[in-house]
Amino acid sequence: MENLVINCIRTLAMDAVEKAKSGHPGTPMALAPAAFVLFDGFLKHNPSNPQWPNRDRFVLSAGHASMLLYATLYVNGYDISIDDLKQFRSLHSRCPGHPEIGITSGVETTTGPLGQGVSNSVGMAIAGKWLSEHFNRPGYNIVNHHVYSICSDGDMMEGISSEAASIAGHLGLGNLIWIYDSNSITIEGSTLLAYSEDTEMRFGSYNWHVEKVSDANNLEEIEKAIARSRSETEKPSIIIMKSQIAYGSPNKQNTCEAHGAPLGKEEVSLAKEFYGWDAQENFHVPDEVLSYREAITARGNDAEAAWKENFRKYSNEYPELAREFEMLEKRELPEDWDSNIPSFPYLADPVATRSANSNVINAIGKKVPWFMGGAADVGSSTKTYLKNTRSFSAEDHEGRNFHFGVREHSMAAIASGMCLSGLRAYASTYFVFADYMKPSIRLAALMKLPVIYIFTHDSIGVGEDGPTHQPIEHLASLRVTPNIDVIRPCDANELAVLWKHVMELTDRPAAFVLTRQNVPVIDRERYAAAEEALQGGYVLADSDGTPDIIMISTGSEVHICLEVYEKLSEMGKNPRVVSLPCWNLFEAQPQEYRDKVLPPSVSTRLSVEAAATFGWEKFTGSGPGSKAYGIDCFGESAPYRDVMNKFGFNTDTILGECLRLLGD
Amino acid sequence: MENLVINCIRTLAMDAVEKAKSGHPGTPMALAPAAFVLFDGFLKHNPSNPQWPNRDRFVLSAGHASMLLYATLYVNGYDISIDDLKQFRSLHSRCPGHPEIGITSGVETTTGPLGQGVSNSVGMAIAGKWLSEHFNRPGYNIVNHHVYSICSDGDMMEGISSEAASIAGHLGLGNLIWIYDSNSITIEGSTLLAYSEDTEMRFGSYNWHVEKVSDANNLEEIEKAIARSRSETEKPSIIIMKSQIAYGSPNKQNTCEAHGAPLGKEEVSLAKEFYGWDAQENFHVPDEVLSYREAITARGNDAEAAWKENFRKYSNEYPELAREFEMLEKRELPEDWDSNIPSFPYLADPVATRSANSNVINAIGKKVPWFMGGAADVGSSTKTYLKNTRSFSAEDHEGRNFHFGVREHSMAAIASGMCLSGLRAYASTYFVFADYMKPSIRLAALMKLPVIYIFTHDSIGVGEDGPTHQPIEHLASLRVTPNIDVIRPCDANELAVLWKHVMELTDRPAAFVLTRQNVPVIDRERYAAAEEALQGGYVLADSDGTPDIIMISTGSEVHICLEVYEKLSEMGKNPRVVSLPCWNLFEAQPQEYRDKVLPPSVSTRLSVEAAATFGWEKFTGSGPGSKAYGIDCFGESAPYRDVMNKFGFNTDTILGECLRLLGD
Repeated sequence: MENLVINCIRTLAMDAVEKAKSGHPGTPMALAPAAFVLFDGFLKHNPSNPQWPNRDRFVLSAGHASMLLYATLYVNGYDISIDDLKQFRSLHSRCPGHPEIGITSGVETTTGPLGQGVSNSVGMAIAGKWLSEHFNRPGYNIVNHHVYSICSDGDMMEGISSEAASIAGHLGLGNLIWIYDSNSITIEGSTLLAYSEDTEMRFGSYNWHVEKVSDANNLEEIEKAIARSRSETEKPSIIIMKSQIAYGSPNKQNTCEAHGAPLGKEEVSLAKEFYGWDAQENFHVPDEVLSYREAITARGNDAEAAWKENFRKYSNEYPELAREFEMLEKRELPEDWDSNIPSFPYLADPVATRSANSNVINAIGKKVPWFMGGAADVGSSTKTYLKNTRSFSAEDHEGRNFHFGVREHSMAAIASGMCLSGLRAYASTYFVFADYMKPSIRLAALMKLPVIYIFTHDSIGVGEDGPTHQPIEHLASLRVTPNIDVIRPCDANELAVLWKHVMELTDRPAAFVLTRQNVPVIDRERYAAAEEALQGGYVLADSDGTPDIIMISTGSEVHICLEVYEKLSEMGKNPRVVSLPCWNLFEAQPQEYRDKVLPPSVSTRLSVEAAATFGWEKFTGSGPGSKAYGIDCFGESAPYRDVMNKFGFNTDTILGECLRLLGD
Repeated sequence: MENLVINCIRTLAMDAVEKAKSGHPGTPMALAPAAFVLFDGFLKHNPSNPQWPNRDRFVLSAGHASMLLYATLYVNGYDISIDDLKQFRSLHSRCPGHPEIGITSGVETTTGPLGQGVSNSVGMAIAGKWLSEHFNRPGYNIVNHHVYSICSDGDMMEGISSEAASIAGHLGLGNLIWIYDSNSITIEGSTLLAYSEDTEMRFGSYNWHVEKVSDANNLEEIEKAIARSRSETEKPSIIIMKSQIAYGSPNKQNTCEAHGAPLGKEEVSLAKEFYGWDAQENFHVPDEVLSYREAITARGNDAEAAWKENFRKYSNEYPELAREFEMLEKRELPEDWDSNIPSFPYLADPVATRSANSNVINAIGKKVPWFMGGAADVGSSTKTYLKNTRSFSAEDHEGRNFHFGVREHSMAAIASGMCLSGLRAYASTYFVFADYMKPSIRLAALMKLPVIYIFTHDSIGVGEDGPTHQPIEHLASLRVTPNIDVIRPCDANELAVLWKHVMELTDRPAAFVLTRQNVPVIDRERYAAAEEALQGGYVLADSDGTPDIIMISTGSEVHICLEVYEKLSEMGKNPRVVSLPCWNLFEAQPQEYRDKVLPPSVSTRLSVEAAATFGWEKFTGSGPGSKAYGIDCFGESAPYRDVMNKFGFNTDTILGECLRLLGD
């Protein structure tokens, strides 16, 4: 029976790749036994409800081996049909080229870019620990799941995995188990071309428990290694498993030819023969495997039913906790979650939006227990500590302040993993280092995960640290990324209002882009209400009738535009100032609203933003009466006012630009 | 004397940070002894000629400790004055907040973003090895320098450093020595908040030689560790040095307060007293230190003179090699370097630009021996092997094909390091993974380094691999980055022509963005010559007189526009097609030329690019007669023609768009 299921996984994978004429057959052939042992002997899951909250998580970090996952899910009874497998890699298939969450039943995270899945798994393990500490009560193990990940040589080589492994070891995540498929083959050939680490020693240095499996076909060896890893509860575990890529293929086994291309019809037949499979039949599923599917599904239903019964009792005894758990699972928020969010009075001292942000997140943190996060060693600068809560550490898995270390990339992937397990996680660093995080931000956007990024030190306003630390192109780089709200508020109140928007997001990440330097709190009696910011862009200071010039701005440059507005008004001009903190939110408004804010008839327009002008023509137009004012080179090291002046971000220069456009 | 120089470094650093009211005093105070021992006892350098080719390289990867470097360079006699130090972190200073190459004499690379400097140092060590293998002859050690780097806890935590260390160990770079400042303090507090690795074990796993220094003030211990590291010639070395941040400051030593802020006047005085320094005087330089400067400079002049004399003899014996060496140093190219670059005949089969690229780089590689590079484990897909050359490995340091492993980020930083040492290095991967490399690409642009990136699989044309592997926002993200030429050629001949441009660059990097799928070779008899591409954008297919519509396109979409052009022409319309392979090159052309290509009077314009439309309004305008046609969401997994059709990249759809804009 074991072999039937294993070989069914193998042959389904081979056949699907062959039919698609594209894909990676070698790893499914090699790892089917490990997947079988894991899913059959250890994984707590219910194929008929892949959303069961206390399921174990399985992450295929080696996403290119997607057919291993699809075939394994199939033989376990997930909602995947043979027809789905036959549609592997075709348009609108439920089995796309790489595993994508939301498309395929049982896929826990979108993988493919190497290193991301394993790093997600660290976030899931953190969430597992936090949830169990927070919700479990004597007799009620509401959350006690494990997180497993299969990873490849490529995952091992990517720096993000080193970061994630290091923090996982530091945090003592005993619920995390990686299975490292050490097959010694990568796309270019032998891993020895580029990789000669002692993996055991390396993970030892990270404080991991290390197991070794000498033969990926030895079920007993695999089973023992997983069992020993599970009994190590104070450390994450890695199982280093020697495997043979394309095991069973007489001519391609152990070669890189089996990595990224179909085996070819003849070789598929030969491999099937080796497995004792019917070489003539494709997508063959023996009756025994069909029965196995049913048995696994029944087992999963029983397991979830028992958990549900326990949860029902828990709900009686701990109704508030149970309600909290349910809200978290549904991505709902407590009713009064935003009641503490402050508004900031005009006449208050100027305040950096990073500082105002500290007030806002602390207000949210008090009401939403599963709101948590931290920074990449700059928490004191980004001001992202939740006061009166503890730090998450090996000794305290219920802390809500995270010290990610100087590891921006894995921080972002870990935040995604936390979010995948229901937590509202935020990740923070200086904006310029958004670059380090981008691959994981992109995946969060693709996965529609409501991760929150808090970027401070958002422009040349950084000052003395100079061009290495001054973002220029970063606003455009994030704005152009699909499905993420990039928010650069002009003052503390826009920030507070937009947090309400962001916390209610369920289908995309958001990035706050905040100042290091102080900016005035805008007089909302004189100018428009901050609530208008919920439309992404709005008329902040209006003209009397049709404006003769529109200044469009974001963040710390808006108050300069207001000063220029006052001067122009005194001069008898008729200016308008539009604050545009979130482009895609504005672009999602009805055309009518957008035309009201930016009337097509008014082509005299100036955008003012201390960043690259790239993309601003969308709002300014590109005619002779318009200009995008910004910075299309790298910054300078000097006190921030000097840098701002050097690049002309002051009232006089912007006034001059307006007058020039107005023909004065 | 030793203590005088060391304490002079310390106090200059403290005073400069104090005067700037900004900076990091703690690390210079801790590491002045190590810097002294290294520069005094080991570093082969000539302060009066920081460009001496055979100098040892010193990289301060912990760039925030820039005053350590500036003060050390000062006491060694580099062209930095006390006045320069007093201008630390002020506008146009020669001592900016973080070290920047090209601004300060003796600075070898721009650092600050953590992990980058150490990764550059790996590239420099590779270059050192290659240059010595290639140029040295019996009796002539033209190149035999070492590469040293001081790095911090933050450098250790960044994933890029793990990647770089792993490949350095794999390649047996015995000329590389890192000094790891283990001070147990980061911005958020104790490193134990986030970091508990066994560094010795970790670097052992990478095949490094490990030394330990228990006290960063013990000159003898430091000296011995460096000496032992130098005598290990088969492996890179790391010296793990326990230090005390802000050593000598009675109240801030060993605290994170000394990390990123001035000590305060009183604390500076107390520390100076501890050092036995005049607590009243600022920027004090004892006469003995002035003499020391002169002595070091004299020693450096002698060392270089001896080398020059040897090189003179070498030039007589090996004139061709010597000429090659000089060209490389001056970033010149052999006269006939481009004579083998092919042109591609029309009527040839369609050819992927990645495949054509293989022909071009092999043509260049034959003529330019110091042109070399590789891929992040996808060399067989990006087709970036140089044929008939060897692979760079621990056993062969003269190979020119690099197997960087699945380590995109460090690949980019290593390529920068190679380039800093004169090599013309290229780095290649799939375009979507440009995200992994971005922090290093940005620094290459900031440093004005002519690194070459070869990105293939440039759009949804990737096909089956799906949205995780299909670039959308990446073109915009790179185009918005200052000082880099982003080149997306429409066919093999545009590619070949633009390589000529790229190879002659000396002041910025360039990124080629190439197709996976085949594209036609355009008929250059019928349409404009490929050489026109040297202007960044040009009229490829012209209208008869003023066009009624302009299609602007890049890469694999240009041939679709040509097909539409033919259809529109048949229909009696008057279309024009502009190929725009390199935006910033086009924008650098005179206004007159640009207006000729894109006449302001013609506002009916359609851009066609299988990527985000963000930024295209610059060329299309944003009026009702214009449209940027692209993809503002994530891609799909399916065969590439299916994906292209799904997003409307075919003749029918583009023709329809044109007719709509033309009001038909």
